[in-house]
Amino acid sequence: MKEILAIIRPNKISKTKDVLDALGYPAMTAIGVFGRGKQKAILGEVNLKNSDSKLREECGDMEYVPKRLISLVVPDEDVQLIVEAIMKVNCTGKIGDGKIFICPIIDSVRVRNKDQGIEAIL
Amino acid sequence: MKEILAIIRPNKISKTKDVLDALGYPAMTAIGVFGRGKQKAILGEVNLKNSDSKLREECGDMEYVPKRLISLVVPDEDVQLIVEAIMKVNCTGKIGDGKIFICPIIDSVRVRNKDQGIEAIL
Amino acid sequence: MKEILAIIRPNKISKTKDVLDALGYPAMTAIGVFGRGKQKAILGEVNLKNSDSKLREECGDMEYVPKRLISLVVPDEDVQLIVEAIMKVNCTGKIGDGKIFICPIIDSVRVRNKDQGIEAIL
Repeated sequence: MKEILAIIRPNKISKTKDVLDALGYPAMTAIGVFGRGKQKAILGEVNLKNSDSKLREECGDMEYVPKRLISLVVPDEDVQLIVEAIMKVNCTGKIGDGKIFICPIIDSVRVRNKDQGIEAIL
Repeated sequence: MKEILAIIRPNKISKTKDVLDALGYPAMTAIGVFGRGKQKAILGEVNLKNSDSKLREECGDMEYVPKRLISLVVPDEDVQLIVEAIMKVNCTGKIGDGKIFICPIIDSVRVRNKDQGIEAIL
Repeated sequence: MKEILAIIRPNKISKTKDVLDALGYPAMTAIGVFGRGKQKAILGEVNLKNSDSKLREECGDMEYVPKRLISLVVPDEDVQLIVEAIMKVNCTGKIGDGKIFICPIIDSVRVRNKDQGIEAIL
């Protein structure tokens, strides 16, 4: 069981969701974040209407870009599939395509029925 | 030392906090997230007044539900206790009760006094 | 490869970013969170203008404090350096300086060019 954390462009979240859904992984969590990669200022991409203007201000105008962080937990055997699917949808070849991190998860529990382990994520 | 990540209903955060506090764990971090479980659309539960309407829009209306992600780091021996306490408060038996994930933490540091390891989380 | 998660004061994010940048780590993700440490109410520090008033309300007024969570992934040999740099900038010696957690990361991928592992984070 692994957590896949993907930091992607906001305008890719809908397509990413559709692909993950089609692959049998409808469950995910999305968080609004500000990110910056190796290449700092990415002019023209900052969304000035983004609601969290306070956070953007603290981060320094025009340097951090609104991104979406999506998180889903998948069985080990599907990690590669999900990573490749996320890359397929999100790779434009341009700076700012984002990153994917794979993290260990020790256990999962579904609160509603106390399912545990793989049962809780499928 | 483990991180307990719980994705719960917004209206359960106050009670969850009270229980964790009573168990000796007042320290936690809360993040506003959008989540979706295996059962996609959960009509009637989406909060239309939620501030991050932008993120909700990107995720597809009525499909993602505002949730709260809480994170706390606890010693290994209390993981089971905390997981059960979170389930006790958050289980309504209905779809949307949320999930709990347990993640490994290698080390913790309290910035104020440089406490490290277990010292930093108690 | 490790993830360094630091929960810091909002007014320290700019300096933290500058130091990490100077040390060769310009890439990071910032998230607005609400946090509470061992010492619960920290009167006078809550920012009433913070945009996520809904989350603050749920958490109980004057008990949770707006914080920033920053996340960056670094090679093992630089974990100690980055942790010390974050402490240097963020330690005021007062309650509320925040915490740092070190988490294992199994793999990283840069979406743009499919760089993997250490290549993806440098």
